[in-house]
Amino acid sequence: MKISLRAQNIQESPIRKLSALANAAKKRGTTVYHLNIGQPDIHTPEVFFRKIYEYNEKVLSYGPSDGLEALKVAMVRYFDYFKIKLENKNIVIATGGSEAISFAFNAVADPGDEIIVSEPFYTNYSGYASQCGLKIVPVTARAENGFHLPDISEFKKKLTPRTRAILLCSPNNPTGTVYSERELKDIGAFAKKHDLFLIADEVYKEFTYDGKVHFSVLQLEGLEDRVIVVDSISKRYSACGARIGAVMSRNEEVMKGITKFAQARLCPPTLEQVGAIGAYELPHDYFAGVMAEYQKRRDILCSILTSRQGIVLQKPEGAFYIMAKLPIADGETFARWLLNEFSDNNETVMIAPGEGFYSTPGKGKDEVRLAYVIEALKLERAARLLLIALDRYQG
Amino acid sequence: MKISLRAQNIQESPIRKLSALANAAKKRGTTVYHLNIGQPDIHTPEVFFRKIYEYNEKVLSYGPSDGLEALKVAMVRYFDYFKIKLENKNIVIATGGSEAISFAFNAVADPGDEIIVSEPFYTNYSGYASQCGLKIVPVTARAENGFHLPDISEFKKKLTPRTRAILLCSPNNPTGTVYSERELKDIGAFAKKHDLFLIADEVYKEFTYDGKVHFSVLQLEGLEDRVIVVDSISKRYSACGARIGAVMSRNEEVMKGITKFAQARLCPPTLEQVGAIGAYELPHDYFAGVMAEYQKRRDILCSILTSRQGIVLQKPEGAFYIMAKLPIADGETFARWLLNEFSDNNETVMIAPGEGFYSTPGKGKDEVRLAYVIEALKLERAARLLLIALDRYQG
Repeated sequence: MKISLRAQNIQESPIRKLSALANAAKKRGTTVYHLNIGQPDIHTPEVFFRKIYEYNEKVLSYGPSDGLEALKVAMVRYFDYFKIKLENKNIVIATGGSEAISFAFNAVADPGDEIIVSEPFYTNYSGYASQCGLKIVPVTARAENGFHLPDISEFKKKLTPRTRAILLCSPNNPTGTVYSERELKDIGAFAKKHDLFLIADEVYKEFTYDGKVHFSVLQLEGLEDRVIVVDSISKRYSACGARIGAVMSRNEEVMKGITKFAQARLCPPTLEQVGAIGAYELPHDYFAGVMAEYQKRRDILCSILTSRQGIVLQKPEGAFYIMAKLPIADGETFARWLLNEFSDNNETVMIAPGEGFYSTPGKGKDEVRLAYVIEALKLERAARLLLIALDRYQG
Repeated sequence: MKISLRAQNIQESPIRKLSALANAAKKRGTTVYHLNIGQPDIHTPEVFFRKIYEYNEKVLSYGPSDGLEALKVAMVRYFDYFKIKLENKNIVIATGGSEAISFAFNAVADPGDEIIVSEPFYTNYSGYASQCGLKIVPVTARAENGFHLPDISEFKKKLTPRTRAILLCSPNNPTGTVYSERELKDIGAFAKKHDLFLIADEVYKEFTYDGKVHFSVLQLEGLEDRVIVVDSISKRYSACGARIGAVMSRNEEVMKGITKFAQARLCPPTLEQVGAIGAYELPHDYFAGVMAEYQKRRDILCSILTSRQGIVLQKPEGAFYIMAKLPIADGETFARWLLNEFSDNNETVMIAPGEGFYSTPGKGKDEVRLAYVIEALKLERAARLLLIALDRYQG
């Protein structure tokens, strides 16, 4: 039986594809430090679970397709803190940021249409593009420029009659780059000029360092009808397993289309939405501690890695990833070797090969994405393991 | 800004589109009996919630993309009761039966491909087909034949070079029909002859009446490589809000493709999976009481409706829906009138217009789908309200 082309061609997650090797290493008794996946060790706020314990309906029934109203109210209040004015009707609760991406893609583009994305980019955009029958068209950001947005002329070169949208992620996964207000205004003007949607994945909004403030595309004036934001509680409240996200736009046609997509899958998970309401009611200073913790980890990881000649990286401005160039020929071969052959004191480290974050063939082969989501002492050990491994790998 | 064609064209859920009118009626103080949606009032098993209360991880982290292993183990044991032999690798846990449908569609078909479905059919198949860029090709089942599968020659007429699969639902939503082993063997042989996948939505598996036994396409011999089953706990354990389903197949290529789709959305909701493990561990006699309750309700609804001349229906063999032909010109107009204008003793009833369950234009206009998921006394009142309304509507 021939399966579909999209099922054949969809890229395997570079973040998850080596899991079997990691499991094998663990079965051999080797400790594996996970720098490969953005799974924070920060505790999920206790109120998230408490709200669920307090749920006392006898029937766990379908909720509204667009999400629980109380969750939208809590989100509107949350964004109000950032001076971002939203109404309930501007929000559809999605099953994770993942579903929010697919809703946004489906709302703006038909099979064969194109979406321009600055690469390296979050690999699952490709996965959704495959499923939605879309083509991701990359413009390549340069490490030397801190992975900031390429010049507008680069975007212009990629325009075709099938271009429907530009997709950005800020703070960026996998680079940690936080786009400036200026950059976003420029790209917004470009989107307007060429009648494109501007989709922004802002799930790392809260995590910016050295006093940098995140600017949201929702704050761009005159672009209300073309801005769509992908949001999630996964990182915000360290609740990745909840699968609660949102898609937000002030374009009523977009929200109407998305609501119909949402109806087709009935509703997002009810109990996890109930937990999310609790999390959103936390006072905003909850984030200060989390942000300080991530900044400390970033500093540890960067200082250890930059101590070694041959490793090239830019100190990230936000999120909790580093895209690092290593003195290796191929990140995936190295990542496999780390899990299959390397160990120091019966410990090793797992990384995400960089190539999977690019869609231009051959790019990113000597890069890896590292997530700094484990506690300081472990992170320090993991970084040093990487250096030891590099010495041995070359030798 | 022009939104996508698929966002413009996707059908609004006929089950949910009238919700705003129902809410308005409730605000006016009118009691609305919901026969429009398959939301059972059966209590979710207490063990579902207890398992979640017992979850004591500090971080609600990503689970495996293909679902928690313990849930798969519980499901394998569950299906073993029905003499259906599965292995963990034959199962990917999905976010509801809804996601399972989209996984199955994406795995077997590319944009522009066709899937043959016996109509009337569960309306959300259309929603997913729109999103996946597929074409639903209907063959029309007849009420007079109890909505059993049309003759194979009808399916044959619909074959084109783009036909990729046949999609069935048994026990059927919206008709309550349970396909016989003979019917399924015949359609299976047809699928084999024309090299098509056979996708079966079996989420109502447990609900068959008058001693009828459900035959699963997973029991068809020689079709292991082309059978894909869509499953869910929503109805099985009255946990619609949990959004836990599964897609099951013994075709390794299919499962490999689906696993990659699953990776793109990271994982299904963790806590609700934990609850589902608890539910699956219930002894099988849990279903005897539930089935008896639904059968009683079916009998009440059928006997009241058939007492009136001009209503045509077949007593359903399973699930908890009736597709009834009413002496009206247009189901949607009638449904709106019920919510906007009709009331008896300040009560009314909400129904799902039949047209939305057909994809052949004009079909089903005088039909409605009724769900018998509310308790006996309320159901009786709802059915009588419908008769009163019909008298008044005609008069």
